[in-house]
Amino acid sequence: MNGAEALLRSLVSSEVSTCFANPGTSEMQFVAALDRVPEMRAVLTLFEGVATGAADGYARMAGKPAATLLHLGPGFANGIANLHNARRAHSPIVNVVGDHATYHQRFDTRLQSDLSGLARTVSAWQRSTTRAEDVGADAAEAVAASYGPPGSISTLIVPADVSWNDGGVPAPPQAPPLRPVVPPETVEGVAKLLRSGERAALLIGGDAMRERGLVAAARIAHATNVKLLCETFPARHERGGSLPEIEKLAYYGEMATAQMAGIQRLVLAGARAPASFFAYPGKPSDLVPEGATVHLLAGVGHDVSAALDALADAVGARADPPRPRANRPDRPTGPLTTESMAAAVGHLLPEDAIVVDESITSGLSVPAATAGGPRHDWLALAGGSIGQGLPAATGAAVAAPGRRVLSLEADGSAMYTLQALWTQAREGLDVTTVLLANRSYTILQFELARVGVSGTGARATAMLDLTRPDLDFVSLASGMGVPAQRATTADELAALLERGFAQDGPMLIEAMLG
Amino acid sequence: MNGAEALLRSLVSSEVSTCFANPGTSEMQFVAALDRVPEMRAVLTLFEGVATGAADGYARMAGKPAATLLHLGPGFANGIANLHNARRAHSPIVNVVGDHATYHQRFDTRLQSDLSGLARTVSAWQRSTTRAEDVGADAAEAVAASYGPPGSISTLIVPADVSWNDGGVPAPPQAPPLRPVVPPETVEGVAKLLRSGERAALLIGGDAMRERGLVAAARIAHATNVKLLCETFPARHERGGSLPEIEKLAYYGEMATAQMAGIQRLVLAGARAPASFFAYPGKPSDLVPEGATVHLLAGVGHDVSAALDALADAVGARADPPRPRANRPDRPTGPLTTESMAAAVGHLLPEDAIVVDESITSGLSVPAATAGGPRHDWLALAGGSIGQGLPAATGAAVAAPGRRVLSLEADGSAMYTLQALWTQAREGLDVTTVLLANRSYTILQFELARVGVSGTGARATAMLDLTRPDLDFVSLASGMGVPAQRATTADELAALLERGFAQDGPMLIEAMLG
Repeated sequence: MNGAEALLRSLVSSEVSTCFANPGTSEMQFVAALDRVPEMRAVLTLFEGVATGAADGYARMAGKPAATLLHLGPGFANGIANLHNARRAHSPIVNVVGDHATYHQRFDTRLQSDLSGLARTVSAWQRSTTRAEDVGADAAEAVAASYGPPGSISTLIVPADVSWNDGGVPAPPQAPPLRPVVPPETVEGVAKLLRSGERAALLIGGDAMRERGLVAAARIAHATNVKLLCETFPARHERGGSLPEIEKLAYYGEMATAQMAGIQRLVLAGARAPASFFAYPGKPSDLVPEGATVHLLAGVGHDVSAALDALADAVGARADPPRPRANRPDRPTGPLTTESMAAAVGHLLPEDAIVVDESITSGLSVPAATAGGPRHDWLALAGGSIGQGLPAATGAAVAAPGRRVLSLEADGSAMYTLQALWTQAREGLDVTTVLLANRSYTILQFELARVGVSGTGARATAMLDLTRPDLDFVSLASGMGVPAQRATTADELAALLERGFAQDGPMLIEAMLG
Repeated sequence: MNGAEALLRSLVSSEVSTCFANPGTSEMQFVAALDRVPEMRAVLTLFEGVATGAADGYARMAGKPAATLLHLGPGFANGIANLHNARRAHSPIVNVVGDHATYHQRFDTRLQSDLSGLARTVSAWQRSTTRAEDVGADAAEAVAASYGPPGSISTLIVPADVSWNDGGVPAPPQAPPLRPVVPPETVEGVAKLLRSGERAALLIGGDAMRERGLVAAARIAHATNVKLLCETFPARHERGGSLPEIEKLAYYGEMATAQMAGIQRLVLAGARAPASFFAYPGKPSDLVPEGATVHLLAGVGHDVSAALDALADAVGARADPPRPRANRPDRPTGPLTTESMAAAVGHLLPEDAIVVDESITSGLSVPAATAGGPRHDWLALAGGSIGQGLPAATGAAVAAPGRRVLSLEADGSAMYTLQALWTQAREGLDVTTVLLANRSYTILQFELARVGVSGTGARATAMLDLTRPDLDFVSLASGMGVPAQRATTADELAALLERGFAQDGPMLIEAMLG
């Protein structure tokens, strides 16, 4: 058995059975081995950023890593932005990157680059295998390492001769490690603090954004009057149905400061101490309220939900918190605005949908419009690097067949990794994309003012403008095999959403926001 | 004056007057300063790989660097693949990358990443400026460093507070350094060797691919019967008109070996010792003929053309080599094949065109079909990372207004950085793209066999296949504002090429290769 086959068999035996691939010459043995290892599903992408973003979306929904298959240093580089996002989401990913044959590297040929240096920037675990005999075990170690906790990026560099040489040995399965449990003293300490009467806030994130953590947090808030907040960009937030609602920490610092005004104790559970996303002149970066002390209940690597359960019991919370009632917006009519768009989404969101949110400024009203809707998952842009939404929607759909993916995508952001649409069409994925067309980098118009610029001239304004020429997303999607329609009113959007949610396979709706 | 303005003024004063930009929040001061420094032309791109590939194409034609403007680590990462190509082409480029404010970095917020680590992988010079007072001088140093010689990548990291703080000082102009001259003893040594009667080859590359170097090389070959060869993927090759033709070293090792059979002395001038692009089982990576000795006349950083001139004089070559006659293919009719496509291009190529070649397997017949045509420049994929053609064509057109750019682009490669078309439309660039649609990664079908795979199954074959669904490049180009038409016969292609070459602004022709 050659190295490539041993690698594939080792991945599959550790339940890494999906690979988002953009291969080149140095990965041809891996490609050939796909026919001998049919348990591995290989999903072709046209660009590496699609592969890595899809692996992120997949990991968030499957709770286990996908592999990516990337070509040399430049191919890996094309995947880094979405690996950055995955790293911030704590998504486990196993990158398999082909390299030049071991004996070939000294020639420093055209496609050679500092692959190890690139891998180091985003990988918690990396290795360059040098023998076919080792590649199976190395793959298993890569999988194990990717679980962390918390989840992280593993990068296995496989020289071409390691793939084609005989002597490969498939590795036995690797079980995911258990998350460490928070010690009872820590829980008791926080419980004491919440009972002290001082004004406290509980900021949750990471795994606590799933049902168990949310219910526990709501119990705690109900029993103690602690102010409950969650991180701004959760990797996976279970919402809707009978799940407790939770207030998100605002993106802009001054709003976050207002949310936490008067807080003396800030307790963190799976979230980090709050800081401004960007720095702005004369505004603080540190958002911990002045004079407040910070207390760590559980780090992102802990079993955060179990810690919250224990805390709820320790503060004597009743078993079940009050649950919200279903509350959907009416079906909107009239002009298509960010508000009527949000209402249409809230009115029609299917049961068990997965919402992938890269709507930036255009989608600000959607969270409120969907909070009282049916149960769904919400995947946010955890690393802040745009170009993640369409790929993540693709990967989420691969991970969760039978569930509808709603991809809320801003026009400027869509253009980074639009190639994801082709993979959606190729795989027949149930992804409905609402392309929010405001034809500008609107967020940068806000940011320009916030960094202290006044009286912007024509040349600066042109850098934030996406007209000249207009992007036509109906043409762009059609060109990649995804059926597409344009909505210019709220009524049209609602009708198209109904159609998109009902039909098999992908569809794109270009929502022309007024 | 704030740091951003001092930075812009310093670039402009050193004649870096074009910036390919994809800015975010941390670059807003730079954007705002564009209105105060109108000498800087800012060209907006929708993706960072377009910005860096355009800077490469620009540098090859302008002979001086463009700046790029990129957003933080992930934005820089998106530009790395084409910076890799630029590095291999020895194109000078000055990257300006915004970073979080100096005092903000300790918070390790969502978008923070190892930007220095990323920059290190492709930059010959890099610096993170910490004070507004220094950024002007640092920018000037970045420009100077980018010239090398040979040309290379400079990356200047500019924290947001360095941009917005006052105290910026524009730097005086930096003159490009002279290239070192090859010592006369070296020239005389090689001359002796060529007169010795042993079978010798002269392999040229880099700057020697321009008129002066080509004429000198042809004089030498005529006087000494040295076998004249050039590198496979030159950054900029002046061809056609009355320029001497030159044989290219073949891409595949066994063909290159045949070209150099019997060679005892291999002289390098601006080229590196030949090595196989990839390694293949049982095939040599080192392509220096067995038993041959290698002699360096001039490295890529030297004044290679001057060294060749001196060598021509030293071997007593006559002043002017024989010049080829014009020889264009007839206008083709009938089915559209790679051969008839090449004939159409060769028949119609305009005077002084710039051909940007990312045609991979589909364009193999074009070099022969254009060799006897009018004078033109040929820009090859010097670093081997696909996704460079459309951006490089964009940058070349910005650098050379009034000249027609012919972008020969393979379908698989086009999908990496297709967003370049939007910038071509926005800037009204005279780029005619011939999109070569064979609907597969054809080169990988060859490579699969060459790495020793036989009897490929359906699952492997699917990874090389670009149908399911078909890509419709007419829709894709139209969606980005570039007029597009499909050619299904040689006659249609010729008619569309005539139209594309005659009209102002960009056009895309999807050539359906049978």
